[in-house]
Amino acid sequence: MSTVIKGGTIVTADLTYKADVKIEGGIITEIGPDLSGETVLDAAGCYVMPGGIDPHVHLEMPFMGTYSADDFESGTRAGLAGGTTMVVDFCLPDPGQSLLEALTRWDNKSTRANCDYSFHMAITSWDERIFNEMQTIVQDKGINTFKHFMAYKGALMVNDDEMFASFSRCAELGALPLVHAENGDVVAAMSAKLLADGNNGPEAHAYSRPAEVEGEATNRAIMIADMAGVPLYVVHTSCEQSHEAIRRARQKGMRVYGEPLIQHLTLDESEYFDKDWDHAARRVMSPPFRNKQHQDSLWAGLQSGSLSCVATDHCAFTTEQKRFGVGNFTRIPNGTGGLEDRLPMLWTHGVATGRLTMNEFVAVTSTNIAKILNIYPKKGAILVGADADIVVWDPKRSKTISASNQQSAIDYNVFEGKTVTGLPRFTLTRGVVAIEESTVKTQEGHGKFVKREPYPAVSKALSTWKELVSPRKVERTGIPASGV
Amino acid sequence: MSTVIKGGTIVTADLTYKADVKIEGGIITEIGPDLSGETVLDAAGCYVMPGGIDPHVHLEMPFMGTYSADDFESGTRAGLAGGTTMVVDFCLPDPGQSLLEALTRWDNKSTRANCDYSFHMAITSWDERIFNEMQTIVQDKGINTFKHFMAYKGALMVNDDEMFASFSRCAELGALPLVHAENGDVVAAMSAKLLADGNNGPEAHAYSRPAEVEGEATNRAIMIADMAGVPLYVVHTSCEQSHEAIRRARQKGMRVYGEPLIQHLTLDESEYFDKDWDHAARRVMSPPFRNKQHQDSLWAGLQSGSLSCVATDHCAFTTEQKRFGVGNFTRIPNGTGGLEDRLPMLWTHGVATGRLTMNEFVAVTSTNIAKILNIYPKKGAILVGADADIVVWDPKRSKTISASNQQSAIDYNVFEGKTVTGLPRFTLTRGVVAIEESTVKTQEGHGKFVKREPYPAVSKALSTWKELVSPRKVERTGIPASGV
Amino acid sequence: MSTVIKGGTIVTADLTYKADVKIEGGIITEIGPDLSGETVLDAAGCYVMPGGIDPHVHLEMPFMGTYSADDFESGTRAGLAGGTTMVVDFCLPDPGQSLLEALTRWDNKSTRANCDYSFHMAITSWDERIFNEMQTIVQDKGINTFKHFMAYKGALMVNDDEMFASFSRCAELGALPLVHAENGDVVAAMSAKLLADGNNGPEAHAYSRPAEVEGEATNRAIMIADMAGVPLYVVHTSCEQSHEAIRRARQKGMRVYGEPLIQHLTLDESEYFDKDWDHAARRVMSPPFRNKQHQDSLWAGLQSGSLSCVATDHCAFTTEQKRFGVGNFTRIPNGTGGLEDRLPMLWTHGVATGRLTMNEFVAVTSTNIAKILNIYPKKGAILVGADADIVVWDPKRSKTISASNQQSAIDYNVFEGKTVTGLPRFTLTRGVVAIEESTVKTQEGHGKFVKREPYPAVSKALSTWKELVSPRKVERTGIPASGV
Amino acid sequence: MSTVIKGGTIVTADLTYKADVKIEGGIITEIGPDLSGETVLDAAGCYVMPGGIDPHVHLEMPFMGTYSADDFESGTRAGLAGGTTMVVDFCLPDPGQSLLEALTRWDNKSTRANCDYSFHMAITSWDERIFNEMQTIVQDKGINTFKHFMAYKGALMVNDDEMFASFSRCAELGALPLVHAENGDVVAAMSAKLLADGNNGPEAHAYSRPAEVEGEATNRAIMIADMAGVPLYVVHTSCEQSHEAIRRARQKGMRVYGEPLIQHLTLDESEYFDKDWDHAARRVMSPPFRNKQHQDSLWAGLQSGSLSCVATDHCAFTTEQKRFGVGNFTRIPNGTGGLEDRLPMLWTHGVATGRLTMNEFVAVTSTNIAKILNIYPKKGAILVGADADIVVWDPKRSKTISASNQQSAIDYNVFEGKTVTGLPRFTLTRGVVAIEESTVKTQEGHGKFVKREPYPAVSKALSTWKELVSPRKVERTGIPASGV
Repeated sequence: MSTVIKGGTIVTADLTYKADVKIEGGIITEIGPDLSGETVLDAAGCYVMPGGIDPHVHLEMPFMGTYSADDFESGTRAGLAGGTTMVVDFCLPDPGQSLLEALTRWDNKSTRANCDYSFHMAITSWDERIFNEMQTIVQDKGINTFKHFMAYKGALMVNDDEMFASFSRCAELGALPLVHAENGDVVAAMSAKLLADGNNGPEAHAYSRPAEVEGEATNRAIMIADMAGVPLYVVHTSCEQSHEAIRRARQKGMRVYGEPLIQHLTLDESEYFDKDWDHAARRVMSPPFRNKQHQDSLWAGLQSGSLSCVATDHCAFTTEQKRFGVGNFTRIPNGTGGLEDRLPMLWTHGVATGRLTMNEFVAVTSTNIAKILNIYPKKGAILVGADADIVVWDPKRSKTISASNQQSAIDYNVFEGKTVTGLPRFTLTRGVVAIEESTVKTQEGHGKFVKREPYPAVSKALSTWKELVSPRKVERTGIPASGV
Repeated sequence: MSTVIKGGTIVTADLTYKADVKIEGGIITEIGPDLSGETVLDAAGCYVMPGGIDPHVHLEMPFMGTYSADDFESGTRAGLAGGTTMVVDFCLPDPGQSLLEALTRWDNKSTRANCDYSFHMAITSWDERIFNEMQTIVQDKGINTFKHFMAYKGALMVNDDEMFASFSRCAELGALPLVHAENGDVVAAMSAKLLADGNNGPEAHAYSRPAEVEGEATNRAIMIADMAGVPLYVVHTSCEQSHEAIRRARQKGMRVYGEPLIQHLTLDESEYFDKDWDHAARRVMSPPFRNKQHQDSLWAGLQSGSLSCVATDHCAFTTEQKRFGVGNFTRIPNGTGGLEDRLPMLWTHGVATGRLTMNEFVAVTSTNIAKILNIYPKKGAILVGADADIVVWDPKRSKTISASNQQSAIDYNVFEGKTVTGLPRFTLTRGVVAIEESTVKTQEGHGKFVKREPYPAVSKALSTWKELVSPRKVERTGIPASGV
Repeated sequence: MSTVIKGGTIVTADLTYKADVKIEGGIITEIGPDLSGETVLDAAGCYVMPGGIDPHVHLEMPFMGTYSADDFESGTRAGLAGGTTMVVDFCLPDPGQSLLEALTRWDNKSTRANCDYSFHMAITSWDERIFNEMQTIVQDKGINTFKHFMAYKGALMVNDDEMFASFSRCAELGALPLVHAENGDVVAAMSAKLLADGNNGPEAHAYSRPAEVEGEATNRAIMIADMAGVPLYVVHTSCEQSHEAIRRARQKGMRVYGEPLIQHLTLDESEYFDKDWDHAARRVMSPPFRNKQHQDSLWAGLQSGSLSCVATDHCAFTTEQKRFGVGNFTRIPNGTGGLEDRLPMLWTHGVATGRLTMNEFVAVTSTNIAKILNIYPKKGAILVGADADIVVWDPKRSKTISASNQQSAIDYNVFEGKTVTGLPRFTLTRGVVAIEESTVKTQEGHGKFVKREPYPAVSKALSTWKELVSPRKVERTGIPASGV
Repeated sequence: MSTVIKGGTIVTADLTYKADVKIEGGIITEIGPDLSGETVLDAAGCYVMPGGIDPHVHLEMPFMGTYSADDFESGTRAGLAGGTTMVVDFCLPDPGQSLLEALTRWDNKSTRANCDYSFHMAITSWDERIFNEMQTIVQDKGINTFKHFMAYKGALMVNDDEMFASFSRCAELGALPLVHAENGDVVAAMSAKLLADGNNGPEAHAYSRPAEVEGEATNRAIMIADMAGVPLYVVHTSCEQSHEAIRRARQKGMRVYGEPLIQHLTLDESEYFDKDWDHAARRVMSPPFRNKQHQDSLWAGLQSGSLSCVATDHCAFTTEQKRFGVGNFTRIPNGTGGLEDRLPMLWTHGVATGRLTMNEFVAVTSTNIAKILNIYPKKGAILVGADADIVVWDPKRSKTISASNQQSAIDYNVFEGKTVTGLPRFTLTRGVVAIEESTVKTQEGHGKFVKREPYPAVSKALSTWKELVSPRKVERTGIPASGV
């Protein structure tokens, strides 16, 4: 059984050219002119791009006895509808819990996925078992990334010595640490103060975590990674302060990646000042939306390469769930949707405006993260031998985003009413057409876990450099006797 | 009884002019031409400047069952010999100890001082008693500065929520928080790793606390101060990373002061690579000496005003005490001398080279800190009504620094062998001549505690601004019922 | 004849204290409690501050065969009404004209001044006569500042080699170069393009000189000054780009001063988009107004010390004169008013908001520029012996700014409708009351030229440093024979 | 006739994998396992990489009636020996000369080239003919890059309005401006001053063009490009100041590329202080070598992506030619060699140290510049359809660089005595083996001119953005009558 994508223009992170793509067994087997196959997908007028990879989603995430509304089925369906063909979820052990136990839970949840997926493993506490299990996670389980929460004090948060220990372990294992960078101590203290002052609405969520608080944590994580001798990936970089810390590190040769979210690129804090409580609460996520200056900073980061990937942190809570936080903003579940809208929103506000080239669009939605995760070119590429995770992008197709026609299980959409131009004509997951324009053809359970090898080239290079400049003992004779 | 300083050129932070200075009752009572008095001090060819204020000393500091070698007598004698007429020591409560109890201990030690002094109070732990005592310390005891150690884990270190609480309390009380900015968690972990790797010599002290580690902590303290709405004073700013964080804050309008030490301005890390263990260990202090690039950064900070004061962190340990750390650098007591050499070294390397004007010299050695401590113009000024803490500075006097002729109680000098040009002809403490060229005339117990009022102008202004931009609650109607 | 200012609080750049001030012969002769004199001015509830110094005005400036509307009489009257007691105008030779001839013209115009004044001399072309006359200007005429226009191509503009030559000459003479920093070539080319595109309205003035264009020129002037070994003063620093260049230089130890205008601190570019042509045209000045981000940058510069002085660039053209540029924005005469409003606007938006302390207010309106111009403490100080240029500031007096009640000769006010709180109760010029609340008592011709000495301390220090680090010839033997 | 490179590991800018490469007709026709062909090149243990592209060479450059010593034959032979398979030379019209005439001269010189080549066209003066000819150059001659010299006053230098005009023209034509960024006015003035002071040796060349002078010009060119709405490429970025300007631009979203040279990455200014005049003079180039801090900055730029390409500015003058400048450093011909050593030096100091990954090595030596020049993937790629410009890199081969065994026509080598590990086993130019280990098999005249299309994706995107944010005229009614 072969499929040919015919008549399109292939756009990758570094090439734009006309060619057909032939797919067999879920793999790209040929790229060239005039290919033929059993099934032909008409790509005339379209761009044939690597499917999007969203490195930051939370599907069916446990929360206060319930779960975030989009599970692996609806979440990946939403992703495919928007041209995303792979997601990376976060496996979240309870503090003290075995990483392997937690992984089993996540394995169970993900069996319903419509597209391929992988996991980041979270380090939410630290002890010898975790130290040891990290090796198993990396070497046996195919997970080469470990997430660290610097916020959510009393829950997921780890402190600096735990981070240093975990980052050092990552260095040994060739794994990459990730951080959620906000100073949890300060957020907690400011939240308490805001509540005490009667500031209990959703806008206080934003007040409780200013850009400086995120910038500080980013800066701190970068230092710890530098000391541990390991690259670092900063999730949901939302502001200039955090971006500045990343740039400053990079201009010293440190290997740091930043990940802005499509929400932070296109929405701003005024959403929280909406007079409708529900409207504001639905936008509650951490970090919160910022302002236009921060947006400009993030766009420039994508242009210059100081920021690497655009994600969503898709973590969908229904309005009903959001209302847990009426009267106390700290109880509003954190998270918004975005999986379906990431690519169309980025295309519309990035490519169509001239901020990004099409190649840069592919880079920041797919290829860069595939390289960082060390799964390139299996994912993130249109190359012979690569998985046929492909979006056939119709730059003329347009729609107005609305909850009323979305795949996500939630009852609203933070981009409601925004018109996007540029949408998938087809989305293929390992060669299978999951989306054909508005028609959803996803297959529950089609998605497979993607194993990822440790020691990508950047990690190896950094280790070499760190060894070269490591502390050298001064050899001395005649050292005096100890004073004690 | 009147004294007249005759024939000199008065140099203050903003003026240079010829005039005599008349002193009565320890106070400057007249400034002008042709003054006469019972005692006449010949200032011909000299600059008549406000005596130096060293805002950062540790005299008779408790350490491992013993004390740092210079007490209030020898320490202030050394200071006066070098033109410094006031010191500020740090009152260090044990974690959990009452601030007032600790203060009593410090009051007892300081009775022997040869010149005026004051205390910073350290916050080394946090509870309700400390919260309450802070008010007494500020309002009754005349102490408007609180020190916070971000390093020395397991001993003096406080963490972020303690800092936020204490900084917020400072904001309420019109007090100024100070920080020792190094990431204690990371220093501890890296020290352990160095020791485990056999890196046990004094050079490993420097390896254990790189500039990035200091820069991170500075950046973090700045954020916390900004959130708490209070100015911040960063002690012993030793490196570009820390200075950069300070500059970055200041260019956003934050009120942050940085204090380089004379050691960091003039000595570098090569000292730790000396083959003589004693030589290296004697230079062990935190932060450690850096390199020329960092020195250039600090000098430029003094020139541009992004750094405010030059101090010493004088904390003198004898070679014998230093040898506690043979075989384990973490046990080398941290600290060096400098009280006697601060002004001559800064003059020689700053004024004589053209890096600083004479007025800037006075500003960074005396006037700026007097303003920050809110004791200006009682101290730090040559004005009628000011305390007659005066140094008559002979720009032609020269000497080679040596332990053999110093006032300090220790058996070495980190500036050994350096020639300085520019030395006191006279040093007066409240009108009394304590130093006349090489002759020491200090009077043990002459020194008095200097009370300092809270709410300096900068604190008040910042509070006004923070109130103006404080979070505003969004008024809403029709808020839905809580989801829980 | 003696005058006493009684019952006020003296506020200087570094002191705030209650005392009376006695004035005799135009000079402050005594400061202290309970002074008496023939005339008593009631300062109860007021701050007694050094009168403002506006370092940047153009009075009766020649322009297209006519003159700017405020001459030395009305201009200085406006200044006094707003608490400003000294102005510095720019003597503008025609290109090729003798500096001394031009100075004669300016001397003639200034005889009507109501308060003291001085001149900056502009270098608008370069030849040996100008090189030689600069010495006379400095040594005989008491002018130690030279202005250079990097914009106004074909008129006042000088190019880089002329600037380097003039700056080098300044270094030799102990004088300070000033720059109007905009890239004149680019402004001219962009103006032509805008006109060609039909963009002929006043908003195109702003389009023709973006912040980047100013930042570039500032950066260039700084480099040239650094190479010439001389400090630099950048007039009307309006934007972050220019401020960033200044900060970057200062953090390398370069001696660079920046001067924001009160207009740029408080008004923004939206003024140019006003539908009323006159409204927009009246705000045309160079650099143009910017946006809130730039304003925030300027305020932070005043707070941190990276910017030094607040000026006005007062150059008042009537609406009739502005209309020269109908149909061609390049013909709109550049300039706005502000002399009368500088202090009240800065107090209201700076001190009352907590952005600045009162001491900082005095520093940036008076004392800093007095130091830079090397006329401190004759001007800019409340000290015995200083000129009695004093404003008795009533922080409760309020008014709404309006052209209808201003002293300036023009028919509008760019701050029209803005309410200020904080106004002079009295303004004294050399001891003479010129303003008593709303009553104007100025005396035409009372003002005198203020001579200024070269070689301020900063210039001397910089020269010392530059000599220390100057290029050293490598001594070689055995140099081969020349190839030619 | 087919050739197969067998048993190697392909390393490209984003992939590392084992595969054979088949070449037919100078083109890569197949990549995969177990390929066979008529000629087999053993790549066991080697990396198969895109041949290097040196975007910055001057071969047979006219100079004072003679020529630089390496012509297109020896220069490209040297390049091939070091793994470089394409060079881009600069066509330098005399000021006022027709671009087309100059191109004819360059076409004639380049017929002897051993490998492919292209030209940048220099704009050394400005008039309508040049404006018009630029279109021909771009559209007919296949040159999409224009070089501008901001230095060499009185010769090649153009000033700001010429640059703005030319950059604007580039924007229209989809071409990319390049700049040599040093302030020529200041260099000329400082050179004259140095000579007048008797500083006539080669070290004075470095004194005459400090890093600040380069940084300034870079900053200026960036502003002009931004105003003209065109990307910018900065050749021979040698210092932090220039790099900082580039980073600052990029973090605002500007499209600016920086090109460090291998010399600046690995050699420093101490070379100029050598007591041997010849040694120093042989290193004279512009910009001059800097110090370790600048080197660190450049390396970090390659790591972070803020700098794009490593070049050589190969412009070889013999010792005899260098001696033209005995007694007057300004007459020392500017230029050094490097074509043969670029790749081995970068590999040794970059890849072997862990500063760069192998993929980054390929990116900065070949792929990035191919993309910027819009010739990717014809050049800079190992892809089916690409030109077979390939280096088979043996990471174990080692040599000590020496003039005694180099291909270049000059009698010295600035890297003399440096040992490199990592050398070509084979270098292929369009499928033909030109180098086989130490054996040179180059074919004079084999090289062909490479045409380059305008409007690469980045240029188009930038134009779209600039149009979107272009000045908008304010529509007004009731505009008053003109004042004139």
